[in-house]
Amino acid sequence: MNREEFKESFQAVDWRNDALVLLDQRKLPFDEVYLTCSDIDQSIEAIKNMTVRGAPAIGICAAYACVLSAAARKPVTDACFQMLRDEFARLAQARPTAVNLNWAVSKMLDALTIEKELGFRYERFLRVAQDIHNEDIQNNLYMGQLAAEIFSRHDKQAVSVITHCNAGSLATGGYGTALGAIRAGWRNGLIDHVYADETRPWLQGARLTAWELMKDDIPVTLNADGAAAWLIKDRKVKWVVVGADRIAANGDVANKIGTFSLAIQARFLGARVMVVAPSSTVDLSTVSGEQIDIEMRSMDELRYLNGKQIAVSDLDIVNPVFDVTPADLIDYIITEKGVIENPNTESIARIIGGES
Amino acid sequence: MNREEFKESFQAVDWRNDALVLLDQRKLPFDEVYLTCSDIDQSIEAIKNMTVRGAPAIGICAAYACVLSAAARKPVTDACFQMLRDEFARLAQARPTAVNLNWAVSKMLDALTIEKELGFRYERFLRVAQDIHNEDIQNNLYMGQLAAEIFSRHDKQAVSVITHCNAGSLATGGYGTALGAIRAGWRNGLIDHVYADETRPWLQGARLTAWELMKDDIPVTLNADGAAAWLIKDRKVKWVVVGADRIAANGDVANKIGTFSLAIQARFLGARVMVVAPSSTVDLSTVSGEQIDIEMRSMDELRYLNGKQIAVSDLDIVNPVFDVTPADLIDYIITEKGVIENPNTESIARIIGGES
Repeated sequence: MNREEFKESFQAVDWRNDALVLLDQRKLPFDEVYLTCSDIDQSIEAIKNMTVRGAPAIGICAAYACVLSAAARKPVTDACFQMLRDEFARLAQARPTAVNLNWAVSKMLDALTIEKELGFRYERFLRVAQDIHNEDIQNNLYMGQLAAEIFSRHDKQAVSVITHCNAGSLATGGYGTALGAIRAGWRNGLIDHVYADETRPWLQGARLTAWELMKDDIPVTLNADGAAAWLIKDRKVKWVVVGADRIAANGDVANKIGTFSLAIQARFLGARVMVVAPSSTVDLSTVSGEQIDIEMRSMDELRYLNGKQIAVSDLDIVNPVFDVTPADLIDYIITEKGVIENPNTESIARIIGGES
Repeated sequence: MNREEFKESFQAVDWRNDALVLLDQRKLPFDEVYLTCSDIDQSIEAIKNMTVRGAPAIGICAAYACVLSAAARKPVTDACFQMLRDEFARLAQARPTAVNLNWAVSKMLDALTIEKELGFRYERFLRVAQDIHNEDIQNNLYMGQLAAEIFSRHDKQAVSVITHCNAGSLATGGYGTALGAIRAGWRNGLIDHVYADETRPWLQGARLTAWELMKDDIPVTLNADGAAAWLIKDRKVKWVVVGADRIAANGDVANKIGTFSLAIQARFLGARVMVVAPSSTVDLSTVSGEQIDIEMRSMDELRYLNGKQIAVSDLDIVNPVFDVTPADLIDYIITEKGVIENPNTESIARIIGGES
């Protein structure tokens, strides 16, 4: 399937009328509200407060935020470049775990250097951000094809899969990473049912993944995170399919809290684990998962739900929002550069680093 | 510690002024509201709607409900006995998984047979229910001692533990099974921190376990269920300590959904699994966990939270509220009859069945 065949009724991140337009994911699935960011500070706030979330979507959002930063200074004179670089650096700090944020900002910094040399041109600078966005969708469509080939290699009949958090259209430029693989598996008759972990505390599974799959008429059933082992065993789930926020050089994968738990269960119960992420998620400068900074978010994300208090005020709460799944629990990492089976430092370097 | 030294500020199940008094656990931790049941139908409804929950507490509640059933027919004539037996049978069906419910009703049926022979005496019949209640507390205190011995056998220093759901005073006649073991470990300097799984969908960890432990000034931190693997690894949690709703003859343990997941994680990460439950939880007529009827509850328990909708109305949801942890993932089952290490059919029969 190419991009022309792929139409979605919503865009998590978009550029319209010289502004960054974000689907406010905090309000889904009940309200489909779009938020317009006209400057970089609004964009940073939208990343921090999770109006936009999902590593690739955050990266695309950041690329457009760099354009907003430059646009605020039209004409961009030589005196502006250091200010822009400072703003880009602040943007790169908005959330710590997803590496796509740094990757996108770094791409825009490179583009800024070129603009400085050639004389700044807004349209050309915007085009870099739009290319990041378009490339993300193309990558997702291609990774879906690769994933479908892997599914078909292992099972002759359509199987059930489970996913955690949301690595769908909402988390990317479009089509999705893990949900792109699932969409491709479904369309090719290789997947017949999807279980969506609710994904506490932010309920990305209940609110976002279920909503996305229902829009595509893909059969989806929601479950409590704790029901995964029961499902894998009793409902014969064959695959855990997830995205990633950062992949270390050795193949360790940082992803939504609960992924590590789920991967352990899959290994114990004989299901396979597939991680789907663009190569921009691989951080070759991070040697292993131990070096990945795990974001700890507010206790209130567990203490309140939709504004309702569910645990007492003085209760201590720990809220890590990512965990690290060691490479040896992962069967496949699918990237647009190719499929990495049983990931390790050598196979990652070969596929991602382009080493021969 | 004997019962005299053990005082609690609340009672999940109590008998006062010829009525069954239940702490309404649906309203905790924000409201401490007691509900009075004056007849068996109110009691059955309270079990079904989870005013009272926790296998031992349900058993005690059922014993008192039998007393209410008889009290409604004072004087209990010969003509009444079959009606009472029919009501008891209906009571035994209120929830399917916890075996303590059947066990307590069966005890009360035996007592009823004796009453029929001797001529029904209300006080004597009530005494049987009160004995079930008192024995439960004594058992919990003793199991706490046994558990403390096990903790001290494995670690020289105080350790962190994690628990799932609520197997505390609220789930029992008092003191608790898993939380009894944790209380004993804490008082003996063997446990220094407790992590409480939130326990979706009913949030027993957030609402009940955290509340109980805070009342006892035991350091407790709440976590999302999905954070368990991260906690066990990064915070060096040494024990998973949980209760049970039914233990099969081979040592398979039915407990709150998520226990199976947690036990797999513990095994993979080198933590130990301790199940604490009175021998009334062991059902020797259930050969293995595969025979245990897993209760499926309403989709709305996941779709709504405190009356607020969190997933769309037409989304399919699967809500098993228990799972079965196979015996080979369990290091210890603590009962009042003794400690069963590496449980299997032989060791269960030896300790529980009294085989030599």
